[in-house]
Amino acid sequence: MADSKSITMKDVAREAGVALGTVSKVVNGIPVGKTYQRRVEDAIEKLGYHVNPQARALRSSRSNFIGVILPNLRNPFFSRLADCLCRELSHRSHEMLLFLTESNFDLEQAYMLMSEQQMVSGIICLTYNPELRIPKGIPTVSIDRSLGPGIACVASDNFGGGSLAARKLMENGCKRLAFLRTGSSLPNETDKRRDGFIRACTDAGIPYHCECVDDGTPYSAFEAFLAAHLHDGRLDFDGIFCATDLLAYKVRRTLLQMGLRVPEDVQIIGYDGAQCFGDEDYYCSTIVQPVEEMARLCVDLVLQSRARSIPCLLQIPVTYASGGSTRD
Amino acid sequence: MADSKSITMKDVAREAGVALGTVSKVVNGIPVGKTYQRRVEDAIEKLGYHVNPQARALRSSRSNFIGVILPNLRNPFFSRLADCLCRELSHRSHEMLLFLTESNFDLEQAYMLMSEQQMVSGIICLTYNPELRIPKGIPTVSIDRSLGPGIACVASDNFGGGSLAARKLMENGCKRLAFLRTGSSLPNETDKRRDGFIRACTDAGIPYHCECVDDGTPYSAFEAFLAAHLHDGRLDFDGIFCATDLLAYKVRRTLLQMGLRVPEDVQIIGYDGAQCFGDEDYYCSTIVQPVEEMARLCVDLVLQSRARSIPCLLQIPVTYASGGSTRD
Repeated sequence: MADSKSITMKDVAREAGVALGTVSKVVNGIPVGKTYQRRVEDAIEKLGYHVNPQARALRSSRSNFIGVILPNLRNPFFSRLADCLCRELSHRSHEMLLFLTESNFDLEQAYMLMSEQQMVSGIICLTYNPELRIPKGIPTVSIDRSLGPGIACVASDNFGGGSLAARKLMENGCKRLAFLRTGSSLPNETDKRRDGFIRACTDAGIPYHCECVDDGTPYSAFEAFLAAHLHDGRLDFDGIFCATDLLAYKVRRTLLQMGLRVPEDVQIIGYDGAQCFGDEDYYCSTIVQPVEEMARLCVDLVLQSRARSIPCLLQIPVTYASGGSTRD
Repeated sequence: MADSKSITMKDVAREAGVALGTVSKVVNGIPVGKTYQRRVEDAIEKLGYHVNPQARALRSSRSNFIGVILPNLRNPFFSRLADCLCRELSHRSHEMLLFLTESNFDLEQAYMLMSEQQMVSGIICLTYNPELRIPKGIPTVSIDRSLGPGIACVASDNFGGGSLAARKLMENGCKRLAFLRTGSSLPNETDKRRDGFIRACTDAGIPYHCECVDDGTPYSAFEAFLAAHLHDGRLDFDGIFCATDLLAYKVRRTLLQMGLRVPEDVQIIGYDGAQCFGDEDYYCSTIVQPVEEMARLCVDLVLQSRARSIPCLLQIPVTYASGGSTRD
């Protein structure tokens, strides 16, 4: 690594056994064949090559920074997303300028402007402000929320995930289902978790109940809801799909406090695929978001040529993982 | 926020009711009285003021970026550290350029050079490379590892924490203690967790066993160790201090698989203060690292005038939290 400053694209091309133009494409985020991509990346890593940022900025009038705007890094879904985005950007010779908003509308807007001022070459964001103004001319990719025409939205298959959760509960013998949700009341892709759940219940002719609580409402609203549905030690529901793993975690704790057993009396499925310590056990049975693939797609989209037509929504398939809160 | 671009330091000074020079100091990370600091920060937040980065860079020949170099964001200690650092830097009108190394020596060095090339105004890092070369003239703060003279190292009170863990186990009735550790074999501040543990055991005249396994050794080494110390369903130890919460989590799982009860048969204390979903229950009884205070101190140090003398090690006190794996 001692000489990494003096290593050039030519050295990388020689090491990888590819043409100089191929290295240039990879470094600038232009797609090449998978084998070539990997060979160039390996050579870059081996030689410790990195692009001279001043030279790049001079050529392009943009830095190789990508502004990444997220609510926080305490929620494991966001921290895993940030982890994958950062490593994927590094792989593509870009750096991550991170902004955390706590979902505050004003901060979301301020960081958009700040990203523009810092001459980022793209923005990847997960925001809630419905009136967010996106800087013109900066490729922007949104996660879980449509920000309008020309801006790609990347999400997991929320509808399919909601539907899968209902079917898994039914396969495990549940006959009285409930869907619980908390989160932003503003329309976003994650709303489809409920739609998919309802569709699967309706198709199967199984009764269901939906309890959605807006952001800002304390969790005690769910405690009251569950208590109101407890009769003679028996809950009205034997299967609950929660819109996030965090909510599933809290609901499980509440049910245990109410003297109910999970999964014997009530089975629970969450959504996200959060794991203890980042990559140990799942907290609960869950619909797993493909965070690594979502991050890779976000980076692909934000670095790709602006000339291409961009789909408005890109959904990535989810999977189910049993994690102790269901009978499977 | 619509007019945030045109808001000046003068507006902030008027809103805060302070002199222009006070605002300038706060924005540039120069210490002022606490009341003034808070009033200026509140005004900055209320008005959505942000520094013009080009103007700042022109004046100072440095950006307002701080390079933050961490292993990953999957481990909850690192993600919480990154969360706190990012918000603290924003408060002080700086932006976080994040690099993730997976503790790879070459990447740690490459990101140091890259931070220099990006003209960062400071570096905050948690690294393992003993031969890391630090760019000259860039204020650098290290976490948990001494990087040499002139570079402040911020850490929790690892010695005090190890000692506290041993004392808590003894207070809870443990008479045969063990310390388990995995991690880097290179000297670093976290080694003192063991030293503090040994000191407390020695002072109390209680026997102890230390089992330290180097990085790269699979966890199964601990399984073999625990199995070798199980005789007729009874473990040689009734109290175990693990150097991290992650290790405590795994050890607890292993003990349960061996038919032992936690905390009835064996009590466990971890280190870090990791919480489920970032801020729900502790995973286990634990020595809590004051991550927010550590992050604030790192930012204070990296932004402060270089003229001051810098202590080589700054330790912040830890606390104990009961989390179900001990009898208290």
